[in-house]
Amino acid sequence: MQTRACVLHSAKDLRIENVPVAEMGDEQVLVRIGAGGICGSDLHYYLDGGFGVVRLQENFIPGHEVAGTVEAVGSKVTKVKPGDRIALNPSRPCGHCKFCQAGEQQHCADMWFYGSAMRFPHSQGAFREQIVVEEFQCEPVGDTVSLGEAACCEPLAVALHVTQRAGSLTGKRILVTGAGPIGALVVAAARYAGALEVMAIDLHDAALKKAGEMGATRTLNVSQGLGLKADEFTAEKGYFDVAIECTGAGAVIRDLLPVLRPRGHLIQVGQTGDVPLPINAIVGKELCVVGAFRFHGEYALAARLLKEGRINVKPIITATLPFERAVEAFEMAADRKAHMKVQLTF
Amino acid sequence: MQTRACVLHSAKDLRIENVPVAEMGDEQVLVRIGAGGICGSDLHYYLDGGFGVVRLQENFIPGHEVAGTVEAVGSKVTKVKPGDRIALNPSRPCGHCKFCQAGEQQHCADMWFYGSAMRFPHSQGAFREQIVVEEFQCEPVGDTVSLGEAACCEPLAVALHVTQRAGSLTGKRILVTGAGPIGALVVAAARYAGALEVMAIDLHDAALKKAGEMGATRTLNVSQGLGLKADEFTAEKGYFDVAIECTGAGAVIRDLLPVLRPRGHLIQVGQTGDVPLPINAIVGKELCVVGAFRFHGEYALAARLLKEGRINVKPIITATLPFERAVEAFEMAADRKAHMKVQLTF
Amino acid sequence: MQTRACVLHSAKDLRIENVPVAEMGDEQVLVRIGAGGICGSDLHYYLDGGFGVVRLQENFIPGHEVAGTVEAVGSKVTKVKPGDRIALNPSRPCGHCKFCQAGEQQHCADMWFYGSAMRFPHSQGAFREQIVVEEFQCEPVGDTVSLGEAACCEPLAVALHVTQRAGSLTGKRILVTGAGPIGALVVAAARYAGALEVMAIDLHDAALKKAGEMGATRTLNVSQGLGLKADEFTAEKGYFDVAIECTGAGAVIRDLLPVLRPRGHLIQVGQTGDVPLPINAIVGKELCVVGAFRFHGEYALAARLLKEGRINVKPIITATLPFERAVEAFEMAADRKAHMKVQLTF
Amino acid sequence: MQTRACVLHSAKDLRIENVPVAEMGDEQVLVRIGAGGICGSDLHYYLDGGFGVVRLQENFIPGHEVAGTVEAVGSKVTKVKPGDRIALNPSRPCGHCKFCQAGEQQHCADMWFYGSAMRFPHSQGAFREQIVVEEFQCEPVGDTVSLGEAACCEPLAVALHVTQRAGSLTGKRILVTGAGPIGALVVAAARYAGALEVMAIDLHDAALKKAGEMGATRTLNVSQGLGLKADEFTAEKGYFDVAIECTGAGAVIRDLLPVLRPRGHLIQVGQTGDVPLPINAIVGKELCVVGAFRFHGEYALAARLLKEGRINVKPIITATLPFERAVEAFEMAADRKAHMKVQLTF
Repeated sequence: MQTRACVLHSAKDLRIENVPVAEMGDEQVLVRIGAGGICGSDLHYYLDGGFGVVRLQENFIPGHEVAGTVEAVGSKVTKVKPGDRIALNPSRPCGHCKFCQAGEQQHCADMWFYGSAMRFPHSQGAFREQIVVEEFQCEPVGDTVSLGEAACCEPLAVALHVTQRAGSLTGKRILVTGAGPIGALVVAAARYAGALEVMAIDLHDAALKKAGEMGATRTLNVSQGLGLKADEFTAEKGYFDVAIECTGAGAVIRDLLPVLRPRGHLIQVGQTGDVPLPINAIVGKELCVVGAFRFHGEYALAARLLKEGRINVKPIITATLPFERAVEAFEMAADRKAHMKVQLTF
Repeated sequence: MQTRACVLHSAKDLRIENVPVAEMGDEQVLVRIGAGGICGSDLHYYLDGGFGVVRLQENFIPGHEVAGTVEAVGSKVTKVKPGDRIALNPSRPCGHCKFCQAGEQQHCADMWFYGSAMRFPHSQGAFREQIVVEEFQCEPVGDTVSLGEAACCEPLAVALHVTQRAGSLTGKRILVTGAGPIGALVVAAARYAGALEVMAIDLHDAALKKAGEMGATRTLNVSQGLGLKADEFTAEKGYFDVAIECTGAGAVIRDLLPVLRPRGHLIQVGQTGDVPLPINAIVGKELCVVGAFRFHGEYALAARLLKEGRINVKPIITATLPFERAVEAFEMAADRKAHMKVQLTF
Repeated sequence: MQTRACVLHSAKDLRIENVPVAEMGDEQVLVRIGAGGICGSDLHYYLDGGFGVVRLQENFIPGHEVAGTVEAVGSKVTKVKPGDRIALNPSRPCGHCKFCQAGEQQHCADMWFYGSAMRFPHSQGAFREQIVVEEFQCEPVGDTVSLGEAACCEPLAVALHVTQRAGSLTGKRILVTGAGPIGALVVAAARYAGALEVMAIDLHDAALKKAGEMGATRTLNVSQGLGLKADEFTAEKGYFDVAIECTGAGAVIRDLLPVLRPRGHLIQVGQTGDVPLPINAIVGKELCVVGAFRFHGEYALAARLLKEGRINVKPIITATLPFERAVEAFEMAADRKAHMKVQLTF
Repeated sequence: MQTRACVLHSAKDLRIENVPVAEMGDEQVLVRIGAGGICGSDLHYYLDGGFGVVRLQENFIPGHEVAGTVEAVGSKVTKVKPGDRIALNPSRPCGHCKFCQAGEQQHCADMWFYGSAMRFPHSQGAFREQIVVEEFQCEPVGDTVSLGEAACCEPLAVALHVTQRAGSLTGKRILVTGAGPIGALVVAAARYAGALEVMAIDLHDAALKKAGEMGATRTLNVSQGLGLKADEFTAEKGYFDVAIECTGAGAVIRDLLPVLRPRGHLIQVGQTGDVPLPINAIVGKELCVVGAFRFHGEYALAARLLKEGRINVKPIITATLPFERAVEAFEMAADRKAHMKVQLTF
């Protein structure tokens, strides 16, 4: 059996081609993909053929933010049935390594994450019409949410994971830096977790408008005025309890430290290389700089919240194109000022 | 009433002079100082007239690691009596600010810390023969420990505070970087807290020998061979649960990240300015970089552990001189290869 | 200066009388009370002259759930000004004892809590037209919420404190037992904190209806059918992550244990005497039974949430009477099947 | 292949019989048992044919505290080799259920725990000369500790698990109730974890003497005098930070509450049925009553501590008999006033 897929042969060389569909096992599920969102890592593969030391070494199907409809199920499958609409968890930890056995599956020593070239052969992705997956990867989303929204389940899971890294956010003052797709979802996740104030900052008003729609209680364009250097943020050793850093920009990370209260948390989400950090500030205020990476149990939670309409992700979907126009879609996604999340339909 | 004290007029200009002794109030205690240790900050004042933006602006008595004997007590004092041997807590938080009321006295908005030029007028220190202090600053140390050892109560309190910042250390693998006085006390504190392995690293064998005497289960001179880059430390995403960084050296801090397990903690004690940190490593392994600053309840704990002989601090005291020879003592303390802790007697 | 107040001379003997108004100090505020809610402890004083070993020993003004309008302020007051509408924090911890200095003010060794006969002379309460209070007790509630709703600030603070005792509730399954005023507010507080499911149980449909209005995702009348013994709750070692017990009924407490997952938390709010608990169940599932008592920082949070309309407390206010009819109001409050929260206006 | 074993046919009917030795697989290990300790549950099977609803339903080999020497290893085994002396972890969680995947293996939904009649067919135990086990169950103990001491690895793992349930014990005041084998090991584990004070209480001086040898800083025979009702323990809302309850006696559990400080922890280890607990005390002081059950990672830690001589378990071994005299040994173990831990040799 064959299906059509987006196949990246090298940077900027994305083709629609037939690829084989695996045979479905007893505990597996055949899914017809309905929608898929283009993520930053997809874009890096498309634009640059990879990032850092991760480079394309063979033809590669990108895509890990997808949702679809169950077409068939193996004989032992009980979680879903044909016709069910699902979000597809792209994370397949091994279950056996010491990290999995400690409940830290996001650090699995043998992780198979869809649409990732970190390992070779690459973990092929899900920008394709049909795919065979494990039962446990399927999270039902019900019939009221669109598959486009359901395809936001993965970045929402990331955002929910992020907000767990600082303990309870209930009643706290939160700063979110960078109002891109992840930042905007982090805003929503922080509000869902009971944050008292969620201030989003960015350089662009359009992004901040989206952050407001996602629930920010305040937005600040830091390209103007004092930005975070204003007295109201730095007085009394710092205003915010938690900063969630989604830009990966060194200057932003450094600027956060003075606005965090003693023992405050900086949750780092944005990835980047070396950033000079003032160690004195971390020591003197006993700050905690904490990394947040991927998700595990949060995927099922994200699916549930989408299914029940508790978090509305529609504001972040800024364009939707049929997958046959994937090249166009990737080019649109590359224009980060104009677009938040660009999705494909299948 | 007058007493003799070490008075710093400017960098390198340290004199023995008479200074007034304050009148003792109802809740105060008159203490005859017996011993005092020279700390890194004392040395900065002596050598450079300050550090960073903290500069001497008036005559200044250094010293905050001291112990002595009670000479007289105010009418309401019950905690100590004349003749009692005590360690003197140099930390006097205000008790009223929001940090004190939250049990985070080390971040007091109006802290009065002996021998600190952070505020003006400066908080005068305790390298003097007699001093009037608050009752709550006195921690009895009993009759079996020397006043020199008792004067190590303050850095031991710092070390105990450090080891609390990563939660329980029981059964954990700990790396301590830098085997100076604080590093060596951190080794002892980590062992006291039930650490399974405590590996100390340094560039000098003499310091590592002291770390071994303080309880390190392993020492490594990283000026030779692979140092922390050895496979045994980096395999399986990192060997250590917790690293306690006491050098403040950028190269050391960076080298720690690969040897920490996912979700491991880097407790930063050493102070320095900007250090380039690889954000990718913090995010991908979800590390926690945590500052540790001063102490609060740990001072009383340190006094108790010294009193009961549970932690032996003798190995770190490498020289003791009468305070009249303070200049000589400060010069010795400046030679960090030759000396750990240099103390004065009064 | 005199003002009218509700004064309890003994059980069932509640009179409206003139009482003196204290002179206002520099850091104090004169408040005209607008509304006050009758709490369970008020009711115990009225019906029984006390509870347990706490008994009325002198004339006593009940009331600790009140809100009003600032009439005058002392010369050093900056937090509020005449005309401001405020909720009045009835909790006045000493600030000096070891519990206050540890940030655990609810355990203050010298607590002065309005409308409590725990100490003698009693802490007189706030069911009166005018009262002089400390500045720090005043929490502004803005102009859009009614004073009746603002008077719910205290029980809402209790509910918010309760939900903090189990760590983050985000994405968790919560069971709330007892849908009286506190139970209903706990439901709202748990939803605010991001609970995924909040099931309220009670013996009365009317109370459960209120719980639904406060945000319960499911309600169950346990006077019928299997109640918590149903398979869906006990399967796989227990369904709920956290149970918040607001009844103080022994039979309910015991029934909770089988529906809590291993390492689940039972937060105990309802007060009662001895209850036989199956120790085997606590040990075998490693459950945590955790007490929750009063509040501290949560009072300001509650005021803020009411001010901003984030939690709607209107459903729990079931009757409002002028304070001159206080006897009638207390009798109504005693009928717990018919009433949730009965309030007085002043 | 056959080997000799202790086989319980019914209560008090313990025989030495031949039983088959399983065939060794690629990842398995053949162990010659050298020593085994009689635990409370073994004793219940012997004396009463079970406990509570757990009853013997077939011939049953007791024993789960054993150590021995590796005789042969499967082809894929790397952790141990023939001749290695090991402690044998009796816990074999399934690795797949939701509890195992969450790192809570002690709550495994399909646990196979040696010498337990909780499931049927029963999990046969290890009081036998030869046994085939999984590689992961073998923990090397080196050549300096006796196999009798190594056989204390299991109860030591229990004790280490217990001490982790209250967070860090460093610098804390701990009360241990009941100085039987578990209580005595808890004393040692609490000292290892840096407890400042460990007071053990019991009704018998002989047991308290053992607790002292295991590291108790104070012992108290509560059959005399005021016991825990003395002012020094109840003043200021309670003296101890943590109580570790090893008796399972209702009266003891109740007496603990007044001596725990506000927010203190009661770690419950001893198993029993219903105990009336004063809910008011738990609520008013916000106590945490926390169950502790079995162990997981602590087994390897216990083996390491024994191997390195960091915890000395010799004081608790009060008698050692050849397994052919098992009946006599079980009868001795039943005399809890005279014996702590009775062991068999094989």
